[in-house]
Amino acid sequence: MLPYATLVQIDRNAPLPVYKQVAHRLVSLIQEGRIQPGAFLPGTRELAALLTLHRKTVVAAYEELERQDWIRTIPRKGVLVSPDLPEVKPRTFQPGKGTGAYKGGTGFDFTHQETQPPPLIASPRFRLVINDGFPDVRESPLALLLRECRRVSQTRAYAHRLMYGRPSGTDHLREALATHLSASRGLAIGPENVLVTRGAQMSIYLAAALLIRPGDKVIVGTTNYHYADLCFEQLGAQLVRVPVDEQGIDVQAVAAVCKRTRIRMLYVVPHHHHPTTVTLSAERRMHLLELIRDQNLAVIEDDYDYDFHYASGPILPLASGDHGGNVLYTGSMTKSLALSIRIGFLVAPAVFVEEAARFRRLLDLRGDNLVEEALAGLIDNGDIDRHLKKTNKLFKERRDVFCDLLTGQLGGLVDFKKPDGGMAVWARFPKRFSIPRLSARAGELGLLIGDGSAYRTVGSAENGIRMGFASLTTTEIREAIRLLKRAAEA
Amino acid sequence: MLPYATLVQIDRNAPLPVYKQVAHRLVSLIQEGRIQPGAFLPGTRELAALLTLHRKTVVAAYEELERQDWIRTIPRKGVLVSPDLPEVKPRTFQPGKGTGAYKGGTGFDFTHQETQPPPLIASPRFRLVINDGFPDVRESPLALLLRECRRVSQTRAYAHRLMYGRPSGTDHLREALATHLSASRGLAIGPENVLVTRGAQMSIYLAAALLIRPGDKVIVGTTNYHYADLCFEQLGAQLVRVPVDEQGIDVQAVAAVCKRTRIRMLYVVPHHHHPTTVTLSAERRMHLLELIRDQNLAVIEDDYDYDFHYASGPILPLASGDHGGNVLYTGSMTKSLALSIRIGFLVAPAVFVEEAARFRRLLDLRGDNLVEEALAGLIDNGDIDRHLKKTNKLFKERRDVFCDLLTGQLGGLVDFKKPDGGMAVWARFPKRFSIPRLSARAGELGLLIGDGSAYRTVGSAENGIRMGFASLTTTEIREAIRLLKRAAEA
Repeated sequence: MLPYATLVQIDRNAPLPVYKQVAHRLVSLIQEGRIQPGAFLPGTRELAALLTLHRKTVVAAYEELERQDWIRTIPRKGVLVSPDLPEVKPRTFQPGKGTGAYKGGTGFDFTHQETQPPPLIASPRFRLVINDGFPDVRESPLALLLRECRRVSQTRAYAHRLMYGRPSGTDHLREALATHLSASRGLAIGPENVLVTRGAQMSIYLAAALLIRPGDKVIVGTTNYHYADLCFEQLGAQLVRVPVDEQGIDVQAVAAVCKRTRIRMLYVVPHHHHPTTVTLSAERRMHLLELIRDQNLAVIEDDYDYDFHYASGPILPLASGDHGGNVLYTGSMTKSLALSIRIGFLVAPAVFVEEAARFRRLLDLRGDNLVEEALAGLIDNGDIDRHLKKTNKLFKERRDVFCDLLTGQLGGLVDFKKPDGGMAVWARFPKRFSIPRLSARAGELGLLIGDGSAYRTVGSAENGIRMGFASLTTTEIREAIRLLKRAAEA
Repeated sequence: MLPYATLVQIDRNAPLPVYKQVAHRLVSLIQEGRIQPGAFLPGTRELAALLTLHRKTVVAAYEELERQDWIRTIPRKGVLVSPDLPEVKPRTFQPGKGTGAYKGGTGFDFTHQETQPPPLIASPRFRLVINDGFPDVRESPLALLLRECRRVSQTRAYAHRLMYGRPSGTDHLREALATHLSASRGLAIGPENVLVTRGAQMSIYLAAALLIRPGDKVIVGTTNYHYADLCFEQLGAQLVRVPVDEQGIDVQAVAAVCKRTRIRMLYVVPHHHHPTTVTLSAERRMHLLELIRDQNLAVIEDDYDYDFHYASGPILPLASGDHGGNVLYTGSMTKSLALSIRIGFLVAPAVFVEEAARFRRLLDLRGDNLVEEALAGLIDNGDIDRHLKKTNKLFKERRDVFCDLLTGQLGGLVDFKKPDGGMAVWARFPKRFSIPRLSARAGELGLLIGDGSAYRTVGSAENGIRMGFASLTTTEIREAIRLLKRAAEA
């Protein structure tokens, strides 16, 4: 007889009832081939004694197995494993360690991601973090959002909406966003032009997946947002790079490329280019719109931190200009609101929004209806506008303090331009300076800061890093810069 | 002079300050070519009078435009539109109506989706809904989840976690799910085997996207879950169909196909096949595991409603058997908990989970950390287990009432087998019976029920519909069946 007492281990603290644990374990033993089809199991009394269980528990386990066709009771003979089951040679139960049909490669190409740094995870070892440019979560309107979630969940209409959500987002949020985006960005759109997504990244993925076929050429900048590059490459695009200088993307170069070769799409971040934070000049903006119309050029405009601008009001997006429906506009409420709950949008011609919604069903069916409704409520009642006004003021102060200290303390080492908006400074270091070493030394002092590898675009001579100032109080900024200086001088 | 009073419309109720509205509108006029480069704008006093605004407002608008390089002030001459801007021929501002680089087709192939019905959206016109098989949202543990969200958001660790989430899900939820899934499903997994997703659909998409290359052959059943078929086809797969009968998918047929041709992957729903709800027999399960090992066959196992089983305990998934790491297991907490907040999982070998997490960053970077942490808390404290126990009891009662009434009232018309679990009955109608007509008539009576088009798999002779019983109280079930009978007899 098998060593049942060893093979069938019971965990009395587990949430699963004991009889089910017994049944599951016996099924495993059959599947592993340790108990073969046609073999007799111990009687209920015997197994109960072996496992020091009540007999009724074993009876329940056997009943369960019989209902599931694993075993059969033969009157006056006993209980045997169903002889119809195929025989199995014993093997160890090793999920995840077998020969794996996809082992040694899924066929998915991740080579482009090899320079990708491990994500920054704050651990208690780090007292302070200079991030990539994210708002201060301590200022997030999360309490308001949760309160609104509770309110929505108590409405009568909710139970209906909950089950039958749409992949394009709830009607209410699409309307609220259409109004909000029209007013704040100079767009003239209706709800039919808005697709609610899980964040700007999903907006980019959806738009790109609809446009790009393997081999298609896509224009991007040098430098460029890392995850956009990866996204296009994974969809099979061939990237064509054009320079990005102090005035933004080089529109003449874009025009030259369009003349030379068939281009499927342009990806551009006119407002605060990622990573360098430069803004596309008004002149180039006009030229680009002209080019978009003339060439009938499809464009993904990534406007990830439009809501933060200090020097003047925010610059209107390309999407607010005359682009003949060619500009697909993406952005995020997550970043604007410092939420851990992710909501973004794609603004596009209605026909494109419909197609993107159909494709989106294959990705995740739809978003979180409750959160979408709650956010719509906060937009409607003005909470979001008030929040943005308040944080703009706050982050402007933080930018000023950060930039003054950066000049004062590290001016000899770091070259940067005070940004007009956004939440990060693009800090350039001398060519030979090792940012990874700076990052490592800062880490030893309790300051978490990236090593710059996420910003190293192919063909770029930039040796820089984004330094986010918005998520630190002025006291924290002082301490962070002090530590950074020590790390640089070490 | 341009008709500024008409062209520059001010909305005093809009959240955007009036001076910004004026500035935005002027930029639009420049971009539309209505005001040309080098042209003079009216003086501030004059424009203020035209628009009946305070002069200071117009001054602020002009300052804004000047900071953004749109206009230039020439002392003693006036304000003119920057002559450096390129000239534009006037065009109407028509986002979404232009010539569209993607108009008339994005290159994305939606032909397979043409039979797709419009999603069921409950409107006040419908008093009752027989859905596809979803739990009762009125029983959802949403209040518990929101309370836990608030608690988590007030912890000190939260601000750190919030910013730096991982694409694979929070560590805490991966651990909680590993424990929960091991205990309830007989899996032996650690957190490294769990990827947290936005729902079972995203799990399927991620797994399939890593495996499938255009032209690859994928085995699916006839019938099969509609969105899985669409997902594989959109990724370029060629579907190879095998029959599904009362014992589940025909494993002999799967084996025959594997012998005949190179197969990239099998998609299977062993527990409650979608749509017909049949469970794979124990014998076939054993044969299939053997085949998976022998052929080194990659499998996506979709176990969308494992948590609901009434006749016996739930049948253990293939993933709990000996499959050599070849089975990728997908499921959802959304469906189990009747949440509008979507959380699913993909269980796979650690190396596969890592690759899927890297790919997932391109889709939406990561999930909602707050909700993930909160769900982990509810799993840890036993709330989820208690909830599932309670709803299993409730839905079993509802199934019994529903099936008794369906037999009693519509037994002559509808052929069905009382399901062992899940939340829906697969109701078959005679070949010539029109389900769309039934659906339309029911709608007139205030009962929303699908028209069956989502279940029509190519090559299937089934004329049926899933009737969800779990989301209706017994009183509602009585009324729904009464209306259904009237609709059928009309």
